[in-house]
Amino acid sequence: MKVHGEPRRTIWLEGEAVRVIDQRALPFAVETEELTSVEQMARAIREMHVRGAGLIGAAAGYGLYLAARTAAPGEVTAALERAAELLRATRPTARNLAWALERQLATAAAAGGGPADGASVEDTERIVAALRAGAERIAEEDMAACRAIGEHGAPLLEAIAARKEGGRVEILTHCNAGWLAFVDVGSATAPIYEARDRGVDLHVWIDETRPWNQGSRLTAWELGQEGIAHTVIVDSAGGYLMQQGRVDIVLVGADRVTPDGWVANKIGTYLKAVAAADSGVPFYAAFPAVTVDPAARGPEDIVIEERDPDEVLTARGLAGERLETVRLAPPGTPAANPSFDLTPPRLITGYITERGIATPSPGAPAQFVP
Amino acid sequence: MKVHGEPRRTIWLEGEAVRVIDQRALPFAVETEELTSVEQMARAIREMHVRGAGLIGAAAGYGLYLAARTAAPGEVTAALERAAELLRATRPTARNLAWALERQLATAAAAGGGPADGASVEDTERIVAALRAGAERIAEEDMAACRAIGEHGAPLLEAIAARKEGGRVEILTHCNAGWLAFVDVGSATAPIYEARDRGVDLHVWIDETRPWNQGSRLTAWELGQEGIAHTVIVDSAGGYLMQQGRVDIVLVGADRVTPDGWVANKIGTYLKAVAAADSGVPFYAAFPAVTVDPAARGPEDIVIEERDPDEVLTARGLAGERLETVRLAPPGTPAANPSFDLTPPRLITGYITERGIATPSPGAPAQFVP
Repeated sequence: MKVHGEPRRTIWLEGEAVRVIDQRALPFAVETEELTSVEQMARAIREMHVRGAGLIGAAAGYGLYLAARTAAPGEVTAALERAAELLRATRPTARNLAWALERQLATAAAAGGGPADGASVEDTERIVAALRAGAERIAEEDMAACRAIGEHGAPLLEAIAARKEGGRVEILTHCNAGWLAFVDVGSATAPIYEARDRGVDLHVWIDETRPWNQGSRLTAWELGQEGIAHTVIVDSAGGYLMQQGRVDIVLVGADRVTPDGWVANKIGTYLKAVAAADSGVPFYAAFPAVTVDPAARGPEDIVIEERDPDEVLTARGLAGERLETVRLAPPGTPAANPSFDLTPPRLITGYITERGIATPSPGAPAQFVP
Repeated sequence: MKVHGEPRRTIWLEGEAVRVIDQRALPFAVETEELTSVEQMARAIREMHVRGAGLIGAAAGYGLYLAARTAAPGEVTAALERAAELLRATRPTARNLAWALERQLATAAAAGGGPADGASVEDTERIVAALRAGAERIAEEDMAACRAIGEHGAPLLEAIAARKEGGRVEILTHCNAGWLAFVDVGSATAPIYEARDRGVDLHVWIDETRPWNQGSRLTAWELGQEGIAHTVIVDSAGGYLMQQGRVDIVLVGADRVTPDGWVANKIGTYLKAVAAADSGVPFYAAFPAVTVDPAARGPEDIVIEERDPDEVLTARGLAGERLETVRLAPPGTPAANPSFDLTPPRLITGYITERGIATPSPGAPAQFVP
């Protein structure tokens, strides 16, 4: 999508290195960062230079390419296993991350790096090339899936516009499931961008999404750059707006989805889902099919990441010209920072994937893959 | 309650002036402010030097005393009417504010200041004295009501402790309905302080309560000063904790209550109520009976205050040694800042007032006044 009118993506190859937009500096500066080792990539994921379901997956794919590229000859398989372990531990809830690692390890094995190591120099080169192409393919598939999510989701917004006789469609979103959370386009934002292109008048309520403020920092910036009307609210306000009939649809992303339809997404998603159900507002989760974890038998199988309590006790923003972190609570205050929550299928109207829209039906697994 | 071990209240007379703790400086400094005119009092309420249901009411009572004290002889009734108008407009949702103004105007009328003006110097002195005593009485009744709320509410926490066989009682609260929101003791915190005094082991999850962070700034400080175990969480986290069985009871305050049991309270209260209902967690609102607005026929009669959008777009805290405001969103981002929401009686387990615990029963008005 566009930054100052120019199309951009969040991660790309530059020579032998990988380059990303450093999202910590957004929205106040557009800074990029060159990553040349898997250790740098792991740090970029863990410390949220890059974040968001699809982007973490793509970053993991590129991370294994970097690991192979810098591995000593004859040690590439061992290096890839260590690298996968390192990357997997960075964000435990993210399914796309685990999926991309599995896929890249299979790609490496097919190219000659197997469980028994000892790849020749020629093998290593082949593995590096395969992982580089594999990472590019993951990124391209991510973009294609997001575009298809837009195609499938836009009619939901068109239908609301028709019902409102051309009146503005009021959307509520939480966190950033926009292009900044993927390689491009985004999941929850894809139907928004597509409907906008089809001429639907729309407005987006953006939850600020404490503690990291992905909403007020990233989604507000992203929609602003695309010229889409939006208003930032605190995370507590969405329920009130729904009660008042000021929200037509809730669109969120997903970080991991169980085959029976539980959605792990940014902390606070469940509160919006339960309020939407209480107010009769349709609630959709949008995600590429690879976000579904086929091994998760239920929500209890999803590890909820607990991040540093300091994120809760502070806020980061611009003081004059300078990025500053301020402390919000008395010194020594304990805090807890669960970063995701679990929304049950009974609160979800539908799942938008690149394969279409699925509706929850208890006991019917993997229905996202029709 | 205690500040550095010393008992304090939030507002008090000092000679002919009124003194308050300036809550904008908390928790980083305990500053007090002397108020000598109703204009200063109105500003203190509007800009939240003082805030919270009961404290706003008490402040309004003292405000009319200041207005009478500084009125020209023969103009006291007109001055009081202007002052009441000024104070009423500061925080439109707050019922205790309107109630205290009505009560003090009646007190002034009884003391000789009536609709037809022309009070003599002697009358004026009598009116000033009556309003001074009336303001003190409002403050004392506020404290007494809060203590009684504690007496009535503590058994709820004792019962949970008994059910958990002495295990720690896990309470979730939103915003600050503590002593800082009243003259002393608080409403939602009153049962907590009383149960603590009765030996109940308890822990409080505190919603940070964006945008003004009454939770992380005020409730965390207040509970810390009283030695009560607590943990700050973002406003989005409470639903997840309830789903996980980590909350035994939700206790909140109220800014205005309709006779049929709708509760206007800090924005986000409704989200906690709907999540509590979804997870089977009991949800109680605690407030003095004067918070009930007998004239409100339903939630549509409650004006929801919209505060400055800048509160949403910024956060205020300590950067090193200095209080700093940081901007969180891109320049020019629109924001909305509804400050209260409305929780329907169907989501409320009970109402704790100084008169006991009432339960919702649709169509049975004024049941808070058994």
